[in-house]
Amino acid sequence: MSEIHYPGGVRPVAEFTSKTQPKKKMTMKISPGNRGMDFEAEINQTNDYYKEKDLAVFSKRPTPINIVKVDYSRGAKITEAYFETQSTTDYNGVYKGHYVDFEAKSVHGKTSFPLANIPRQQIEHLKYVLHHGGIGFFLIRFVTKEETFLVPASYVIDFYEKRERASIPLEDIRANGYLIPVGYRPRYDFLPLIDEAFLK
Amino acid sequence: MSEIHYPGGVRPVAEFTSKTQPKKKMTMKISPGNRGMDFEAEINQTNDYYKEKDLAVFSKRPTPINIVKVDYSRGAKITEAYFETQSTTDYNGVYKGHYVDFEAKSVHGKTSFPLANIPRQQIEHLKYVLHHGGIGFFLIRFVTKEETFLVPASYVIDFYEKRERASIPLEDIRANGYLIPVGYRPRYDFLPLIDEAFLK
Repeated sequence: MSEIHYPGGVRPVAEFTSKTQPKKKMTMKISPGNRGMDFEAEINQTNDYYKEKDLAVFSKRPTPINIVKVDYSRGAKITEAYFETQSTTDYNGVYKGHYVDFEAKSVHGKTSFPLANIPRQQIEHLKYVLHHGGIGFFLIRFVTKEETFLVPASYVIDFYEKRERASIPLEDIRANGYLIPVGYRPRYDFLPLIDEAFLK
Repeated sequence: MSEIHYPGGVRPVAEFTSKTQPKKKMTMKISPGNRGMDFEAEINQTNDYYKEKDLAVFSKRPTPINIVKVDYSRGAKITEAYFETQSTTDYNGVYKGHYVDFEAKSVHGKTSFPLANIPRQQIEHLKYVLHHGGIGFFLIRFVTKEETFLVPASYVIDFYEKRERASIPLEDIRANGYLIPVGYRPRYDFLPLIDEAFLK
């Protein structure tokens, strides 16, 4: 809330050439192994922006944890637990009264998106969402290409169920998805693309 | 999926008199201290029923956990973590294309629902939900009275923000909420009340 907001989301050119850009530098210094997490953080930032600007409310579901042991001797300290796979997608929320459900994935391959990135239960979950009139999509970032797309869930589900190929070619994603403009704040402005893809 | 389904959700009378009712007995044997958890389990069962019957998709957000230490020497074992408060409500999902968001609370008092049961951030979250055209409500169970209500979030928010009383009298909940019929499966059939309260 204490950050500087630029009108229309435009960041002054001066900032790009400034030598004091701690935030920018942090983003550029991330190692390849952290890029997945970084994409998640950027989507969270985008969602925070939408909430703050009163445009939509999307929230990330917490990672499910399988708790094995809890020590109640000093408060409730979890001493043995394991990460579990989300049985739904990572994000959902409300936009213009519509239920919206999506998953964010970043990949390092240059030519295609491997379907192995999507657990079967996420496909099943999104099928239910679409069946009940919700909006569903994937945000797919090709890290090395620096291209990020909103891809409707219906397209991904069809591709997944045909089982003809193990990955979706980038060309097909370009043809059937929507390229997300990358900015400073919000980082990935996908909201106008929801209008374009689902509400026209 | 392997359970017996009765047409129209009606359970044959024979079952009520049968002496082999392991599930029913388990429900009746719960200790008072477990009733809160039991209500959650019953709402989860109701949601499972709605999903299976192709009526709606509601899911429980996992409890957020603050992870302090992870031991990577043998897989990823969490060795120190703590429970956190949900910054949203516990449940959300999609019904007839609408975004639906709700919280389930059971109370042991006989005459009122203490607002201390609702963290401030849940009120804020529900205000955002309503503002963006979503449907929001509380499922409130008076355990000793065996009465369970769907109470629209708008009513609870108004009561909360007036700050005149620390709890909502049961009489007011009866007058402004919707009594949920209790059955076998689904346990709390609140879906028709969403139509009545929000979609008419």
